[in-house]
Amino acid sequence: MSKNVHDAAYNLENALRESDDFKELQSLYDQVNADESTKNMFDNFRNLQVELQQKQMQGQQITEEEAQQAQQTFELVQQNEVISKLMNAEQRVSQLIQDINKIVTKPLEELYGNPEDPQQ
Amino acid sequence: MSKNVHDAAYNLENALRESDDFKELQSLYDQVNADESTKNMFDNFRNLQVELQQKQMQGQQITEEEAQQAQQTFELVQQNEVISKLMNAEQRVSQLIQDINKIVTKPLEELYGNPEDPQQ
Ligand SMILES: [Ca+2]
Ligand SMILES: [Ca+2]
Repeated sequence: MSKNVHDAAYNLENALRESDDFKELQSLYDQVNADESTKNMFDNFRNLQVELQQKQMQGQQITEEEAQQAQQTFELVQQNEVISKLMNAEQRVSQLIQDINKIVTKPLEELYGNPEDPQQ
Repeated sequence: MSKNVHDAAYNLENALRESDDFKELQSLYDQVNADESTKNMFDNFRNLQVELQQKQMQGQQITEEEAQQAQQTFELVQQNEVISKLMNAEQRVSQLIQDINKIVTKPLEELYGNPEDPQQ
Protein backbone atom coordinates (compact mmCIF):
# COMPACT_ATOMS: atom_id res chain seq x y z
CA MET A 1 0.00 0.00 0.00
CA SER A 2 1.47 3.36 -1.01
CA LYS A 3 2.22 5.84 1.78
CA ASN A 4 -0.44 8.25 0.49
CA VAL A 5 -3.19 5.60 0.49
CA HIS A 6 -2.04 4.32 3.88
CA ASP A 7 -2.03 7.81 5.47
CA ALA A 8 -5.41 8.68 3.95
CA ALA A 9 -6.94 5.41 5.24
CA TYR A 10 -5.64 6.08 8.76
CA ASN A 11 -6.96 9.66 8.63
CA LEU A 12 -10.36 8.32 7.68
CA GLU A 13 -10.25 5.74 10.47
CA ASN A 14 -9.50 8.52 12.93
CA ALA A 15 -12.26 10.79 11.58
CA LEU A 16 -14.74 7.92 11.92
CA ARG A 17 -13.58 7.16 15.47
CA GLU A 18 -13.97 10.85 16.43
CA SER A 19 -17.37 11.27 14.75
CA ASP A 20 -20.51 11.92 16.86
CA ASP A 21 -22.23 8.89 15.29
CA PHE A 22 -19.44 6.53 16.33
CA LYS A 23 -19.03 8.03 19.80
CA GLU A 24 -22.75 7.68 20.45
CA LEU A 25 -22.66 4.06 19.25
CA GLN A 26 -19.77 3.34 21.59
CA SER A 27 -21.50 4.98 24.55
CA LEU A 28 -24.78 3.08 23.98
CA TYR A 29 -22.96 -0.21 23.47
CA ASP A 30 -21.18 0.34 26.80
CA GLN A 31 -24.51 1.15 28.48
CA VAL A 32 -26.10 -2.06 27.15
CA ASN A 33 -23.13 -4.16 28.27
CA ALA A 34 -23.07 -2.54 31.73
CA ASP A 35 -26.47 -4.02 32.61
CA GLU A 36 -26.56 -7.82 32.68
CA SER A 37 -30.24 -8.34 31.86
CA THR A 38 -30.10 -5.78 29.05
CA LYS A 39 -26.93 -7.41 27.72
CA ASN A 40 -28.56 -10.86 27.77
CA MET A 41 -31.63 -9.59 25.95
CA PHE A 42 -29.49 -7.92 23.30
CA ASP A 43 -27.16 -10.93 22.90
CA ASN A 44 -30.10 -13.30 22.44
CA PHE A 45 -31.58 -11.08 19.76
CA ARG A 46 -28.24 -10.67 17.99
CA ASN A 47 -27.57 -14.42 18.06
CA LEU A 48 -31.00 -15.14 16.60
CA GLN A 49 -30.36 -12.59 13.83
CA VAL A 50 -26.96 -14.10 12.97
CA GLU A 51 -28.45 -17.62 12.95
CA LEU A 52 -31.19 -16.65 10.49
CA GLN A 53 -28.76 -14.74 8.26
CA GLN A 54 -26.42 -17.73 8.11
CA LYS A 55 -29.36 -19.91 7.08
CA GLN A 56 -30.27 -17.46 4.32
CA MET A 57 -26.67 -17.22 3.11
CA GLN A 58 -26.54 -21.01 2.89
CA GLY A 59 -29.68 -20.89 0.74
CA GLN A 60 -31.86 -22.51 3.42
CA GLN A 61 -35.51 -21.56 3.78
CA ILE A 62 -36.53 -19.53 6.87
CA THR A 63 -39.69 -21.13 8.28
CA GLU A 64 -42.76 -19.01 9.09
CA GLU A 65 -42.30 -19.93 12.75
CA GLU A 66 -38.69 -18.69 12.75
CA ALA A 67 -39.70 -15.43 11.04
CA GLN A 68 -42.45 -14.92 13.64
CA GLN A 69 -40.07 -15.66 16.50
CA ALA A 70 -37.54 -13.14 15.12
CA GLN A 71 -40.27 -10.49 14.73
CA GLN A 72 -41.49 -11.05 18.31
CA THR A 73 -37.97 -10.88 19.71
CA PHE A 74 -37.36 -7.70 17.71
CA GLU A 75 -40.53 -6.08 19.10
CA LEU A 76 -39.51 -7.11 22.61
CA VAL A 77 -35.98 -5.71 22.48
CA GLN A 78 -37.24 -2.53 20.77
CA GLN A 79 -39.20 -1.79 23.97
CA ASN A 80 -35.93 -1.50 25.87
CA GLU A 81 -34.97 2.16 25.42
CA VAL A 82 -31.18 1.73 25.51
CA ILE A 83 -31.25 -1.23 23.09
CA SER A 84 -33.61 0.65 20.80
CA LYS A 85 -31.24 3.64 20.78
CA LEU A 86 -28.28 1.31 20.20
CA MET A 87 -29.95 -0.28 17.18
CA ASN A 88 -30.67 3.17 15.72
CA ALA A 89 -27.07 4.22 16.32
CA GLU A 90 -25.90 1.00 14.63
CA GLN A 91 -28.03 1.81 11.62
CA ARG A 92 -26.56 5.32 11.38
CA VAL A 93 -22.97 4.02 11.59
CA SER A 94 -23.79 1.25 9.11
CA GLN A 95 -25.14 3.89 6.71
CA LEU A 96 -22.05 6.01 7.30
CA ILE A 97 -19.78 3.07 6.41
CA GLN A 98 -21.84 2.45 3.27
CA ASP A 99 -21.54 6.12 2.27
CA ILE A 100 -17.77 6.00 2.89
CA ASN A 101 -17.47 2.84 0.77
CA LYS A 102 -19.41 4.52 -2.03
CA ILE A 103 -16.97 7.45 -2.04
CA VAL A 104 -13.80 5.36 -1.74
CA THR A 105 -14.74 2.85 -4.46
CA LYS A 106 -15.86 5.57 -6.91
CA PRO A 107 -12.70 5.16 -9.04
CA LEU A 108 -13.57 1.47 -9.50
CA GLU A 109 -17.20 2.27 -10.21
CA GLU A 110 -16.10 4.69 -12.93
CA LEU A 111 -13.77 2.08 -14.39
CA TYR A 112 -16.20 -0.84 -14.44
CA GLY A 113 -19.53 0.94 -14.52
CA ASN A 114 -20.63 -0.67 -11.27
CA PRO A 115 -19.65 -0.24 -7.60
CA GLU A 116 -18.66 -3.83 -6.94
CA ASP A 117 -15.21 -5.12 -6.18
CA PRO A 118 -13.67 -6.12 -9.56
CA GLN A 119 -12.74 -9.60 -8.32
CA GLN A 120 -16.28 -10.42 -7.22
CA MET B 1 -21.80 12.64 7.40
CA SER B 2 -19.61 15.03 9.40
CA LYS B 3 -17.32 17.33 7.42
CA ASN B 4 -14.22 15.61 8.84
CA VAL B 5 -15.37 12.13 7.79
CA HIS B 6 -16.49 13.44 4.41
CA ASP B 7 -13.16 15.20 3.71
CA ALA B 8 -11.15 12.18 4.86
CA ALA B 9 -13.19 9.85 2.62
CA TYR B 10 -12.62 12.10 -0.40
CA ASN B 11 -8.90 12.31 0.38
CA LEU B 12 -8.75 8.53 0.44
CA GLU B 13 -10.68 8.27 -2.82
CA ASN B 14 -8.16 10.62 -4.40
CA ALA B 15 -5.14 8.75 -2.98
CA LEU B 16 -6.58 5.49 -4.37
CA ARG B 17 -7.19 7.06 -7.78
CA GLU B 18 -3.62 8.40 -7.88
CA SER B 19 -2.01 5.17 -6.68
CA ASP B 20 0.23 3.15 -9.02
CA ASP B 21 -1.93 0.05 -8.50
CA PHE B 22 -5.08 1.82 -9.64
CA LYS B 23 -3.40 3.62 -12.55
CA GLU B 24 -2.00 0.34 -13.82
CA LEU B 25 -5.42 -1.31 -13.53
CA GLN B 26 -6.96 1.54 -15.51
CA SER B 27 -4.30 1.35 -18.21
CA LEU B 28 -4.64 -2.44 -18.62
CA TYR B 29 -8.43 -2.25 -18.64
CA ASP B 30 -8.22 0.36 -21.43
CA GLN B 31 -5.80 -1.88 -23.34
CA VAL B 32 -8.13 -4.88 -23.10
CA ASN B 33 -11.12 -2.80 -24.22
CA ALA B 34 -9.20 -1.28 -27.14
CA ASP B 35 -8.90 -4.65 -28.87
CA GLU B 36 -12.20 -6.23 -29.85
CA SER B 37 -11.18 -9.90 -29.77
CA THR B 38 -9.40 -9.44 -26.42
CA LYS B 39 -12.42 -7.59 -25.04
CA ASN B 40 -14.77 -10.39 -26.18
CA MET B 41 -12.56 -13.05 -24.61
CA PHE B 42 -12.42 -11.14 -21.34
CA ASP B 43 -16.17 -10.36 -21.31
CA ASN B 44 -17.04 -14.02 -21.90
CA PHE B 45 -14.83 -15.09 -19.03
CA ARG B 46 -16.20 -12.39 -16.70
CA ASN B 47 -19.81 -13.29 -17.58
CA LEU B 48 -19.14 -16.97 -16.88
CA GLN B 49 -17.58 -16.05 -13.51
CA VAL B 50 -20.54 -13.86 -12.53
CA GLU B 51 -22.99 -16.58 -13.57
CA LEU B 52 -21.29 -19.23 -11.42
CA GLN B 53 -21.00 -16.85 -8.45
CA GLN B 54 -24.71 -16.02 -8.64
CA LYS B 55 -25.51 -19.72 -8.64
CA GLN B 56 -23.33 -20.24 -5.57
CA MET B 57 -24.89 -17.25 -3.78
CA GLN B 58 -28.33 -18.70 -4.44
CA GLY B 59 -27.17 -21.95 -2.84
CA GLN B 60 -27.23 -23.86 -6.14
CA GLN B 61 -24.73 -26.62 -6.84
CA ILE B 62 -22.04 -25.97 -9.47
CA THR B 63 -21.85 -29.06 -11.69
CA GLU B 64 -18.52 -30.74 -12.43
CA GLU B 65 -18.99 -29.81 -16.09
CA GLU B 66 -19.46 -26.13 -15.23
CA ALA B 67 -16.41 -26.12 -12.98
CA GLN B 68 -14.35 -27.72 -15.76
CA GLN B 69 -15.62 -25.20 -18.32
CA ALA B 70 -14.71 -22.31 -15.99
CA GLN B 71 -11.24 -23.76 -15.41
CA GLN B 72 -10.64 -24.20 -19.17
CA THR B 73 -11.85 -20.67 -19.92
CA PHE B 74 -9.60 -19.35 -17.15
CA GLU B 75 -6.56 -21.16 -18.58
CA LEU B 76 -7.39 -19.83 -22.05
CA VAL B 77 -7.71 -16.17 -21.02
CA GLN B 78 -4.60 -16.44 -18.82
CA GLN B 79 -2.61 -17.12 -22.00
CA ASN B 80 -3.51 -13.65 -23.24
CA GLU B 81 -0.78 -11.46 -21.79
CA VAL B 82 -2.80 -8.27 -21.39
CA ILE B 83 -5.75 -10.08 -19.79
CA SER B 84 -3.40 -11.98 -17.50
CA LYS B 85 -1.81 -8.70 -16.40
CA LEU B 86 -5.25 -7.13 -15.96
CA MET B 87 -6.38 -9.98 -13.70
CA ASN B 88 -3.23 -9.61 -11.59
CA ALA B 89 -3.82 -5.84 -11.36
CA GLU B 90 -7.43 -6.48 -10.31
CA GLN B 91 -6.24 -8.78 -7.56
CA ARG B 92 -3.81 -6.15 -6.27
CA VAL B 93 -6.49 -3.42 -6.23
CA SER B 94 -8.96 -5.83 -4.65
CA GLN B 95 -6.40 -6.57 -1.91
CA LEU B 96 -5.78 -2.83 -1.51
CA ILE B 97 -9.52 -2.19 -1.01
CA GLN B 98 -9.65 -5.03 1.54
CA ASP B 99 -6.67 -3.55 3.41
CA ILE B 100 -8.31 -0.10 3.37
CA ASN B 101 -11.57 -1.58 4.69
CA LYS B 102 -9.68 -3.31 7.48
CA ILE B 103 -8.14 0.00 8.56
CA VAL B 104 -11.32 2.07 8.25
CA THR B 105 -13.54 -0.40 10.12
CA LYS B 106 -11.02 -0.91 12.94
CA PRO B 107 -13.07 1.24 15.37
CA LEU B 108 -16.04 -1.12 14.82
CA GLU B 109 -13.85 -4.18 15.15
CA GLU B 110 -12.60 -2.90 18.49
CA LEU B 111 -16.15 -2.20 19.65
CA TYR B 112 -17.68 -5.53 18.62
CA GLY B 113 -14.65 -7.79 18.67
CA ASN B 114 -15.09 -8.67 14.99
CA PRO B 115 -14.62 -6.76 11.71
CA GLU B 116 -18.16 -7.17 10.40
CA ASP B 117 -20.69 -4.41 9.87
CA PRO B 118 -22.76 -4.20 13.10
CA GLN B 119 -26.06 -4.46 11.21
CA GLN B 120 -25.07 -7.61 9.34
CA1 LIG C 1 -31.09 -4.89 34.94
CA1 LIG D 1 -7.25 -8.50 -32.04
